[in-house]
Amino acid sequence: MTQQIGVVGLAVMGKNLAWNIESRGYSVSVFNRSSEKTDEMVKESEGKDIHPTYSIEEFINSLEKPRKILLMVKAGPATDATIDSLLPLLDNDDILIDGGNTNYQDTIRRNKALAESGVNFIGMGVSGGEVGALTGPSLMPGGQQAAFDKVSHILESISAKADDGAACVAYIGPNGAGHYVKMVHNGIEYADMQLIAESYAMMKDLLGMSHEEISQTFKDWNAGELSSYLIEITGDIFTKLDDKSDDALVEKILDTAGQKGTGKWTSINALELGIPLTIITESVFARFISSIKEERVNASKQLNGPNAKFEGNKDEFLEKIRKALYMSKICSYAQGFAQMRKASDDNEWNLKLGELAMIWREGCIIRAQFLQKIKEAYDNNTELQNLLLDPYFKDIVTNYQDALRDVVATGVQNGVPTPGFSASINYYDSYRSENLPANLIQAQRDYFGAHTYERKDREGVFHTQWIED
Amino acid sequence: MTQQIGVVGLAVMGKNLAWNIESRGYSVSVFNRSSEKTDEMVKESEGKDIHPTYSIEEFINSLEKPRKILLMVKAGPATDATIDSLLPLLDNDDILIDGGNTNYQDTIRRNKALAESGVNFIGMGVSGGEVGALTGPSLMPGGQQAAFDKVSHILESISAKADDGAACVAYIGPNGAGHYVKMVHNGIEYADMQLIAESYAMMKDLLGMSHEEISQTFKDWNAGELSSYLIEITGDIFTKLDDKSDDALVEKILDTAGQKGTGKWTSINALELGIPLTIITESVFARFISSIKEERVNASKQLNGPNAKFEGNKDEFLEKIRKALYMSKICSYAQGFAQMRKASDDNEWNLKLGELAMIWREGCIIRAQFLQKIKEAYDNNTELQNLLLDPYFKDIVTNYQDALRDVVATGVQNGVPTPGFSASINYYDSYRSENLPANLIQAQRDYFGAHTYERKDREGVFHTQWIED
Repeated sequence: MTQQIGVVGLAVMGKNLAWNIESRGYSVSVFNRSSEKTDEMVKESEGKDIHPTYSIEEFINSLEKPRKILLMVKAGPATDATIDSLLPLLDNDDILIDGGNTNYQDTIRRNKALAESGVNFIGMGVSGGEVGALTGPSLMPGGQQAAFDKVSHILESISAKADDGAACVAYIGPNGAGHYVKMVHNGIEYADMQLIAESYAMMKDLLGMSHEEISQTFKDWNAGELSSYLIEITGDIFTKLDDKSDDALVEKILDTAGQKGTGKWTSINALELGIPLTIITESVFARFISSIKEERVNASKQLNGPNAKFEGNKDEFLEKIRKALYMSKICSYAQGFAQMRKASDDNEWNLKLGELAMIWREGCIIRAQFLQKIKEAYDNNTELQNLLLDPYFKDIVTNYQDALRDVVATGVQNGVPTPGFSASINYYDSYRSENLPANLIQAQRDYFGAHTYERKDREGVFHTQWIED
Repeated sequence: MTQQIGVVGLAVMGKNLAWNIESRGYSVSVFNRSSEKTDEMVKESEGKDIHPTYSIEEFINSLEKPRKILLMVKAGPATDATIDSLLPLLDNDDILIDGGNTNYQDTIRRNKALAESGVNFIGMGVSGGEVGALTGPSLMPGGQQAAFDKVSHILESISAKADDGAACVAYIGPNGAGHYVKMVHNGIEYADMQLIAESYAMMKDLLGMSHEEISQTFKDWNAGELSSYLIEITGDIFTKLDDKSDDALVEKILDTAGQKGTGKWTSINALELGIPLTIITESVFARFISSIKEERVNASKQLNGPNAKFEGNKDEFLEKIRKALYMSKICSYAQGFAQMRKASDDNEWNLKLGELAMIWREGCIIRAQFLQKIKEAYDNNTELQNLLLDPYFKDIVTNYQDALRDVVATGVQNGVPTPGFSASINYYDSYRSENLPANLIQAQRDYFGAHTYERKDREGVFHTQWIED
């Protein structure tokens, strides 16, 4: 009697995914390096078709062939160590699936090395946190297509389902494509969160709104085109009161944002690819600045600024913030999707950008109504250069730009930092500029380094002696 | 009869450095992999104490011991190949100096590997371009201090000299410290150039200034606190006319800025270190956006914006641009020096930040009067956390911030992109914020991922069940 799939690594994500798989009618073998976690899980799995194993050999022998093994171990050296321990016991055509938070370059390396041993390796992004893992995550598997086809029924059954019933999983592309897309997803998540945080700062520091008003505003926004998980939970967050004061709990939380590194990876990759990823990158930098709290407290006593003071119609300005947020979000996704397009070309992944938006509609942190619009944009034009050029998005940004300009100008004049909003309007204005002042930069480079330049009006490469010797 | 120093690699930088060294009274052996370049240099070196060699053996044997060899070959694999070909012929205590545009991580690796063979390896940043190489560059050597001491008399003699006579060279620190500092120097150069380009865009697109007026403005600015090489050559550039029109030549140059990668490296390193390097990074991204000219031309026909229109006193606004530029430059250097401080701590380089400012005063592209102020800031306080907190710079930024705010707000409202200026004011406002809205980001992370948070008012690590199940 063999099991249909095995899970290695029984920390919370591995355990929840195993239960999720079992709940869809599959028999599951589980293994953990330390047997305590296995025993613990056995206790919690009463009545479930979960089969504990206590050695690699027992685990491998418990699985039907070709074996399907989901690795849920810590990304990095632990993943290599686990693969090394499994490999001698695997047969041709077995399928390893790495569901960890793995750097896509490691996945490319492992996929190649394992293919040489005849073993399939799928690197799969898993989004949705603990709850998503148990009830339905968004899944981004990349690797051998034929291997994916053999596990697709399992992945589809455990994944989140969109309103139209579609499973939030699709074959992303060869080798590291799945983990790559998960990385950019996380980068986009950083920007979504930063833009919401800037909106909150404007509401609180400039408009002087109470936490009840802020909560209600996000709840109202969640009923419209901004409808999304992050807006929804933000509305919730401002309703939670502190246990020992009349204030909202969120106001008591230390303003130093943590991070696990995928946002940083996304920005580094954009720099390597030559893609302007300004909004996500400003969001990563904003977390860095937030983390030096003591230094900021010290600086706040030494560096002055304007006293934030709002004069005007509050409700009208709040609507401008809403528009600024939506337009900035669109600019951020335009950058992220441009990055995935370039990576797809460079790596020959053939990413289906519209499909990515589809599988993010449920299960993951950035799930949002507007992802449907991204899908439609790529349905209308698979070769779309930039989301801003799609009719729906073009209409939004051309109509909302004045609001975004007002919000940025007001923030800057009042000393309320808006790095994400500012990056958004600067990206919009740069991207739509037929002429940028980079001609001066080229002139300077030619002046001091003889780097040469091209001309707007003539073919060729030119160098000028800018001044007499 | 042996020579005092050898140069390998006779492209323009190697050749000019060899001539520079010879002009200070040193005898120089030269070698190039292909003999044509050697022959060419011999012809151009009549009457000079330059000794051509035509094999590695001949080259090595022509040098006095311990040998001093300057490598001026293409950074990357060519440098490794050259080192590999030299190594079997070298003796203990010989000194290799890599003057190429090398990634500091390669320098750390080579310094370590060669030290195991008993050979000293100095990675040296060289700034100043072709002319600087010949007449006096700014030099940033890192590696073994004892090895540096043996070549310091040569490096001091060939380097640029500041007004006070000081040589623009100093021992930077162990292993990769020299190439690291050169990398950040180049990143700072990107930001300096971007900020000048944004000033030019405001003058031209918003104030409608002629190239004569723009030239005169930069010349005027060069007489004040902005006095620097890049401002000076910008003043020159706008005087150069096109050969076939009445326009300035710079207006004919294609606005697609090239790059060699060191700006990008600086940003990637900042992301790895956790340092907010927003201004340099926006400058790198601005070059990326400039490079997609066709896409921009297409977008310019589809995405509209406000018609730039300036109402107000032009001269007053021009003075605001000047202040915005100086304040942004200060913010950019504050970020770059914070990055070097962190890298110094992490790598145990013991960088002397004030000294770096000193050796950039002449010879290099970012040479500027205000570097003296940076030197003084670190003289006053070697532990200075951030340049913005130094009394001189604090005074400038607190007084110039209103100008920077007006310039950014005006640019944003008029559709003139100011990514560098915007990043500057956002950095200033973020850095001086006792409270940032990152508390909301922490609340969101705890809500969806149970990432926990700290509090402002209590010790400990907390997790909250944000809504009822």
